[in-house]
Amino acid sequence: MSEKISKILFPRLVVLITTCGMDGKANVSTFSFIMPISFQPKYVAFAVVPTRYTFKNLKEVPEFVINIPNEKMLKEVWVCGTRSGRDTDKFKLAELKTEASVKVKPLRIEKCPIQLECKVEFMREFGDHYLIVGKVLEEHVKEKEFKPILHYSGNEFYVVGEKVSYGG
Amino acid sequence: MSEKISKILFPRLVVLITTCGMDGKANVSTFSFIMPISFQPKYVAFAVVPTRYTFKNLKEVPEFVINIPNEKMLKEVWVCGTRSGRDTDKFKLAELKTEASVKVKPLRIEKCPIQLECKVEFMREFGDHYLIVGKVLEEHVKEKEFKPILHYSGNEFYVVGEKVSYGG
Repeated sequence: MSEKISKILFPRLVVLITTCGMDGKANVSTFSFIMPISFQPKYVAFAVVPTRYTFKNLKEVPEFVINIPNEKMLKEVWVCGTRSGRDTDKFKLAELKTEASVKVKPLRIEKCPIQLECKVEFMREFGDHYLIVGKVLEEHVKEKEFKPILHYSGNEFYVVGEKVSYGG
Repeated sequence: MSEKISKILFPRLVVLITTCGMDGKANVSTFSFIMPISFQPKYVAFAVVPTRYTFKNLKEVPEFVINIPNEKMLKEVWVCGTRSGRDTDKFKLAELKTEASVKVKPLRIEKCPIQLECKVEFMREFGDHYLIVGKVLEEHVKEKEFKPILHYSGNEFYVVGEKVSYGG
């Protein structure tokens, strides 16, 4: 009996990734297949299905912003993860104000406490997703005392519980 | 002011990854830079510092097992993440019984509720880590109703809180 990989490696941090096309049109979508790779310089990886609008944008403009939502933004996360930017202005639908980035073209989401401006350094297909590796060019840490949202599968999420120190 | 990437992309699922050398000597180490890539076939990615014993093993025997500990295994997670397999038998020190894998040489950790046998399909250096991509050859899901451990930074971890359904 095979279990979905999302129900095996769980829970996963939820992020909103913003991109834009050659025409400058902005998009935002929800991801949880994401991880850090390197501390110095900072590198991150995420995985995207090649039929998604985000992937089309990355091929045109190989830059993205990782915006980390806080625990109050579950509705925004849901809207951005279930609608396509092809036919929907998700910024408007989810009421997400944007602000210009410093080093990349894609916009930042104003109310996300952390935003990482990244450029794509590597893309390769593995199975049904593309692996994307980005180098962080600029970081915006507006707030540190927040709790992010964690994903399980479908419409099921986890709340972050208490912090525990080992041996402390 | 620059923040550590581990304090930006948090919390992260903690796993124990088992490997072995050409001489057959087994090792286990703790990782939290890990994510799923693909549903079908299943692919996963993780990142490892090239000076670690796990990396030496992966170059010799390009196979690994992802063992997911439950929330009671914080001590084991700590021991396996802070000692090196070069001079320590971490299985003995952390009292981890092993069992043979079905399709790969590295051993599975018996009391981990989920174990994924993987072969390395890609390795590449990004910054201070190597990105490793593995294809899942065999999965063992012994238990589904458990809570995993989440990492923040250093000796600070997070407990998984309650599950919430959006719109449900």
